[in-house]
Amino acid sequence: MDEQFLRESIKRFLSEDIGSGDITSEPIFPPEQQGEAIFIAKEEFIAAGLENLAPLVFHCQNEAIVCGGKVDGNRVQHGETVFRAAGPVLDLLKAERVALNLVQRLCGIATLTRTYIDRVRDLPVQVVDTRKTTPGLRALEKYAVRVGGGHNHRMSLADGILIKDNHIAACGSITEAVRLVRDRAPHTLKIEVETETLDQVRECLDNRVEIIMLDNMDLERMRQAVKLVDHRALLEASGGVRLDTIRAIAETGVDLISVGALTHSAPACDISMRMSIG
Amino acid sequence: MDEQFLRESIKRFLSEDIGSGDITSEPIFPPEQQGEAIFIAKEEFIAAGLENLAPLVFHCQNEAIVCGGKVDGNRVQHGETVFRAAGPVLDLLKAERVALNLVQRLCGIATLTRTYIDRVRDLPVQVVDTRKTTPGLRALEKYAVRVGGGHNHRMSLADGILIKDNHIAACGSITEAVRLVRDRAPHTLKIEVETETLDQVRECLDNRVEIIMLDNMDLERMRQAVKLVDHRALLEASGGVRLDTIRAIAETGVDLISVGALTHSAPACDISMRMSIG
Amino acid sequence: MDEQFLRESIKRFLSEDIGSGDITSEPIFPPEQQGEAIFIAKEEFIAAGLENLAPLVFHCQNEAIVCGGKVDGNRVQHGETVFRAAGPVLDLLKAERVALNLVQRLCGIATLTRTYIDRVRDLPVQVVDTRKTTPGLRALEKYAVRVGGGHNHRMSLADGILIKDNHIAACGSITEAVRLVRDRAPHTLKIEVETETLDQVRECLDNRVEIIMLDNMDLERMRQAVKLVDHRALLEASGGVRLDTIRAIAETGVDLISVGALTHSAPACDISMRMSIG
Amino acid sequence: MDEQFLRESIKRFLSEDIGSGDITSEPIFPPEQQGEAIFIAKEEFIAAGLENLAPLVFHCQNEAIVCGGKVDGNRVQHGETVFRAAGPVLDLLKAERVALNLVQRLCGIATLTRTYIDRVRDLPVQVVDTRKTTPGLRALEKYAVRVGGGHNHRMSLADGILIKDNHIAACGSITEAVRLVRDRAPHTLKIEVETETLDQVRECLDNRVEIIMLDNMDLERMRQAVKLVDHRALLEASGGVRLDTIRAIAETGVDLISVGALTHSAPACDISMRMSIG
Amino acid sequence: MDEQFLRESIKRFLSEDIGSGDITSEPIFPPEQQGEAIFIAKEEFIAAGLENLAPLVFHCQNEAIVCGGKVDGNRVQHGETVFRAAGPVLDLLKAERVALNLVQRLCGIATLTRTYIDRVRDLPVQVVDTRKTTPGLRALEKYAVRVGGGHNHRMSLADGILIKDNHIAACGSITEAVRLVRDRAPHTLKIEVETETLDQVRECLDNRVEIIMLDNMDLERMRQAVKLVDHRALLEASGGVRLDTIRAIAETGVDLISVGALTHSAPACDISMRMSIG
Amino acid sequence: MDEQFLRESIKRFLSEDIGSGDITSEPIFPPEQQGEAIFIAKEEFIAAGLENLAPLVFHCQNEAIVCGGKVDGNRVQHGETVFRAAGPVLDLLKAERVALNLVQRLCGIATLTRTYIDRVRDLPVQVVDTRKTTPGLRALEKYAVRVGGGHNHRMSLADGILIKDNHIAACGSITEAVRLVRDRAPHTLKIEVETETLDQVRECLDNRVEIIMLDNMDLERMRQAVKLVDHRALLEASGGVRLDTIRAIAETGVDLISVGALTHSAPACDISMRMSIG
Repeated sequence: MDEQFLRESIKRFLSEDIGSGDITSEPIFPPEQQGEAIFIAKEEFIAAGLENLAPLVFHCQNEAIVCGGKVDGNRVQHGETVFRAAGPVLDLLKAERVALNLVQRLCGIATLTRTYIDRVRDLPVQVVDTRKTTPGLRALEKYAVRVGGGHNHRMSLADGILIKDNHIAACGSITEAVRLVRDRAPHTLKIEVETETLDQVRECLDNRVEIIMLDNMDLERMRQAVKLVDHRALLEASGGVRLDTIRAIAETGVDLISVGALTHSAPACDISMRMSIG
Repeated sequence: MDEQFLRESIKRFLSEDIGSGDITSEPIFPPEQQGEAIFIAKEEFIAAGLENLAPLVFHCQNEAIVCGGKVDGNRVQHGETVFRAAGPVLDLLKAERVALNLVQRLCGIATLTRTYIDRVRDLPVQVVDTRKTTPGLRALEKYAVRVGGGHNHRMSLADGILIKDNHIAACGSITEAVRLVRDRAPHTLKIEVETETLDQVRECLDNRVEIIMLDNMDLERMRQAVKLVDHRALLEASGGVRLDTIRAIAETGVDLISVGALTHSAPACDISMRMSIG
Repeated sequence: MDEQFLRESIKRFLSEDIGSGDITSEPIFPPEQQGEAIFIAKEEFIAAGLENLAPLVFHCQNEAIVCGGKVDGNRVQHGETVFRAAGPVLDLLKAERVALNLVQRLCGIATLTRTYIDRVRDLPVQVVDTRKTTPGLRALEKYAVRVGGGHNHRMSLADGILIKDNHIAACGSITEAVRLVRDRAPHTLKIEVETETLDQVRECLDNRVEIIMLDNMDLERMRQAVKLVDHRALLEASGGVRLDTIRAIAETGVDLISVGALTHSAPACDISMRMSIG
Repeated sequence: MDEQFLRESIKRFLSEDIGSGDITSEPIFPPEQQGEAIFIAKEEFIAAGLENLAPLVFHCQNEAIVCGGKVDGNRVQHGETVFRAAGPVLDLLKAERVALNLVQRLCGIATLTRTYIDRVRDLPVQVVDTRKTTPGLRALEKYAVRVGGGHNHRMSLADGILIKDNHIAACGSITEAVRLVRDRAPHTLKIEVETETLDQVRECLDNRVEIIMLDNMDLERMRQAVKLVDHRALLEASGGVRLDTIRAIAETGVDLISVGALTHSAPACDISMRMSIG
Repeated sequence: MDEQFLRESIKRFLSEDIGSGDITSEPIFPPEQQGEAIFIAKEEFIAAGLENLAPLVFHCQNEAIVCGGKVDGNRVQHGETVFRAAGPVLDLLKAERVALNLVQRLCGIATLTRTYIDRVRDLPVQVVDTRKTTPGLRALEKYAVRVGGGHNHRMSLADGILIKDNHIAACGSITEAVRLVRDRAPHTLKIEVETETLDQVRECLDNRVEIIMLDNMDLERMRQAVKLVDHRALLEASGGVRLDTIRAIAETGVDLISVGALTHSAPACDISMRMSIG
Repeated sequence: MDEQFLRESIKRFLSEDIGSGDITSEPIFPPEQQGEAIFIAKEEFIAAGLENLAPLVFHCQNEAIVCGGKVDGNRVQHGETVFRAAGPVLDLLKAERVALNLVQRLCGIATLTRTYIDRVRDLPVQVVDTRKTTPGLRALEKYAVRVGGGHNHRMSLADGILIKDNHIAACGSITEAVRLVRDRAPHTLKIEVETETLDQVRECLDNRVEIIMLDNMDLERMRQAVKLVDHRALLEASGGVRLDTIRAIAETGVDLISVGALTHSAPACDISMRMSIG
């Protein structure tokens, strides 16, 4: 992750939540009053954002604060302490809500990803995310996917090629679209093409396309595509993948399954804070 | 909403999604190629972010683009066009994902808020949000709550006073906490205090507290608080409010019910884009 | 105060004053040359900005610099040392002017505020500031008002409601204006209305307005308003308040008196620097 | 003036004053409601900031707004309209306070500068400003000085050389200080040295110093310095210059008189706004 | 290219060159004085930056200015007009130097790239750039490479994988390094490995590495590598490539040749401006 | 140099080069893995940017990293270590390319400047730079010129006056142009005028112009100008100065020679990095 960018994002988030100051706490706690904030899991989940993100949030609010937490990727039980932060009470209270809003979301994503992974753990398939992330939080959310055991699709429009229906329509054919893009793109990038029919899959193979996306295909057609391609390209299943359908999709033999829901509708995990004032 | 801030946020979101450019589309579409993007509802929902936000996203990507949409707050049916954007195809494709990621979330929040409101529409109670919003998107999410018929609690720690258990513990009593805060806070703000017992509610009344939060109280105790306070302060019910419990809570006679879930776990609405290239 | 914002403001101020470097001092003082800067009061005043602001200015110029000063709110005598800063001479010289330009202004505001307060110290009235502050310095100037013993009115248009003549005219009546604003505003904010006649004061009471501003009313009318309201709302006197009129206004029994001059025309206090090079 | 910098400053000032929105006006005025704001002089003053600055403030709030005003440098009479702004009422109200806070200050500076100038208009002397300006507003305040008929001293530490007592003390002599600075400074800049004695003035002449500052010298000594220098360098009188002393100083024959008070303690001019809603 | 980023870069460049204003031109040219600036080639070169960049520089200085130029990629003859800009003279003079400093560099890069390309035009090889670009100008310089007929290597460390000697040493083998990186990297990226021996090339093939860099190999060894790989991977020659060696390297049969000098030491082209004041 | 500005520039440069992360190194090196990077000269050159700039680049990437290097201005031999950096391997690899891209350029400029200086070392003339610098790197490049023994011309349009042909044409005469500029410019700045004929030189003298630029004059005319001026103004030779012509130009007796090539076409010096992993 780009730490500069992360720091600046967190500062904006803190500024959004704190505004010109905590008008409730400032008259009550003197700046030098120390305390400890303990964050406790109110349900079971996969930790994400505890190693680096949460400490950084508190650090951005007040440089002197130190804190530690659970290891990202580990399972946390209901009632366990997930991390602690120590320092001036005023700073702990100012950082609390941003830290929770971020960490609860990331734990939610990691936990949902792990659930998907568990359904296909014994099969040679990768579960990958999409660009359906929260604006401003993409790097963090994609990190949580990796923590949960998933893999990342492209980070932005600039670092992955995906030729979709609009591109194909505008060029007249997959062949022409691939030709135009290959001529211009860095040679370090594979070319991925979205397909809806086996004919399109064949045209991809003819053009040495490295990744073929099977968009909203039914299981039978996916199986045919796997047979047709025979490891000459990576196959990515995409579109409406759910917990109750992922195993059957994986069993068709595709190499990758992309799931928008990983970042798009993961419910936040429940964590609460308890403060002890020293 | 602060339009400067919104513009700068959107520019960051676009930059996050586009990176150094759309390496797939740039070799295919010449900069002058015009097109129209049509966004279609894939389910029924309450519109939010269509009037100002979506146009602004496209406008931030390319100033010349114009577009219009449904009125925020209205119900959109499955299959209806929610808005259109016209301009250079390259710009439409670059703005598409950010526009969808934002609008789908806001529509989700407005729709969920409306669902809560519908349960208590005939009762004299306001449904209000919390600070449990997505970092970076608070103003937008709180706007969506209003569009759905809800009301906003404080925007940040700076523009609303809420004395909580930690503050009371540190001061020794509600009385002392209120005294300290009142002495320093602008006279334009009401004072709200979080309470867990009826004794605390009484202490609030003795100190002319303007809003009393009833934190995780059971229905019976809420009814007693309503009777005790007798309109001398506003009463806000808070904590674990769900769709299946909100009506009973409202029937106790409280003035306000705050629901973190409005912004915290509203599922995104499904909208898809169709491009026609001119 | 929002420390992030303050830091960034100070960095801009330093950059404005230093430009691409101190071309006079850089050829003379080697970077490692240490020194001490002593700031001395050239007149009597109330200290403001010495505890946190001045150290922060020097800290922003060079992180290693430490310094301490008088307690904000205390009276400083002519000839007293108000604070010291130690570190590389080049950094002391670069920070000197910004530190002085800021501190002299804040001390001026605190001193003027204290003078107003002293005129009405025995009466149950608060002296409050306005939005007539220096662009870019509002939080600092409002801090100086508090240091001087005054109270703050709203920080921005977003965290306080003030219905003025234009609003009333556009709505047709105070009643309608209050209704529109109350329906939308967070319940945590009181509603303030500007009035010019006793009829308007009555209309405010009918609408349970929490704060009534008496705009440029004469003393007799203020007294009638106080009697009429009888503690059912806070009364704020506003408009052309001067040192020679504030006592008579306070004696009418109003709760608050707002004074634009506190921030608008406080003369700067005179402080000079003496450098000793070690 | 650097328009980019000015635009960004104004956006920050607007953001400081508006926060997350005008919660009073937004429920009352629909976004499309047009109006006209008329700004009227409540006293006589010299116009400054009406030509470019005021229009820019309104333009930064909403690009569509047009407005015009008095010519900077002209005298405005009590009761005259100083400028008008037309556009959405919401935007006029949001920009009003920032525009007034800035323009009132600039008019104040221009007016005070003109008063100083008028005292010495028939003498061959320039009245110049100092670095004692409001942090963040230096370029604007120095513009107002020029509008009033004054001249600018250096804009920052980077674009003018001024060797002061600390520099001389550290180097052991003016001669050595000048040698060090001249060796490093761009040849496009003159060298100015602060002196307290006639011996120091002589040492400056020996070193071909282009500008000699006479710091807090009495009139007699200034006259001797003028005689001694005999036009071989520019002479700048500095230190405690007041309206009642500037003429006598000018009559000594110095070329420049610097006055910190021009920017430091110019009282703001009184301007009020009247809104007509269309 | 990311236009937001480009705009902000140009604004910074203008600010660097203009500072607080053009103190020479501002007293001479009134703001409304119009003119035309004509930019003329003083030597033969390949145009780059004339289509979009130069207009954007002038547009960033003053929005109203329009201008047009030669088509990027075309050859410009000595004496030809390369582009014209019309608008206020003050703005033309302020934008001139930044426009020239940028365009002269880009034309230089495009011209040098074209020279390299011309040496190997008949061979099936791509000439690619490196990360040895000017800090802050990478996207522009890589654009100029494309204009000249070259191709781009990775834009940043984030969008291309290149396993180098340090990585291999730390992992103990290419095999282990590839395994670690492949497990984590997005599947959309090819893996490139830097090799110095044929054994390393073999190890790459065993690990299905998609791109093999031949680092500073002599021609004979390159030929052996080409034979060994036999189109199972792309081969990139790298290290000390010069105009007098590129043809021999290309004739070995490698697919790509990377040349740091394209961006690193391209001499600027000579362009001068002539102003006609209207 | 303005350290704030430098820090922010370096952060942008790092962000440009690193993007969202080093996807090759992050899977290989754990964050805590320490190492040392040694930078070695591959040719002889004058050091520039090793004292402050290189440490700052590594410091901006990771605050804990310490490093030291050669003294700027000293000659470095082929094979010598120019500086070392120690810290986490990941951070060393992320900062490497930006550090090299900057330092190699600055060393190149310092080395070229020294070569020019060496041609005229025994003559009373200064070699000065121009505004033909890399956008975004001006302060650094002008620093390298000073390190090489050169002097700086104006930093921006705001801190030096240079009346050129367009200004003179617009005013009708040098006399009028000087009059307009002198009336407005700070008295701390000298006035420089570009001339092409001896008549123009005479007109400059008549107007007490402090610096006269001789633009593209031949040697004979320069000699006449030197004689004519006779030390009443500084003379700057400008236009097409090369290594093989600078000595003859200096021997005419001019005071300054400006050389665009110092910053414009200095070839980068060759430095390589060797990493040892601890």
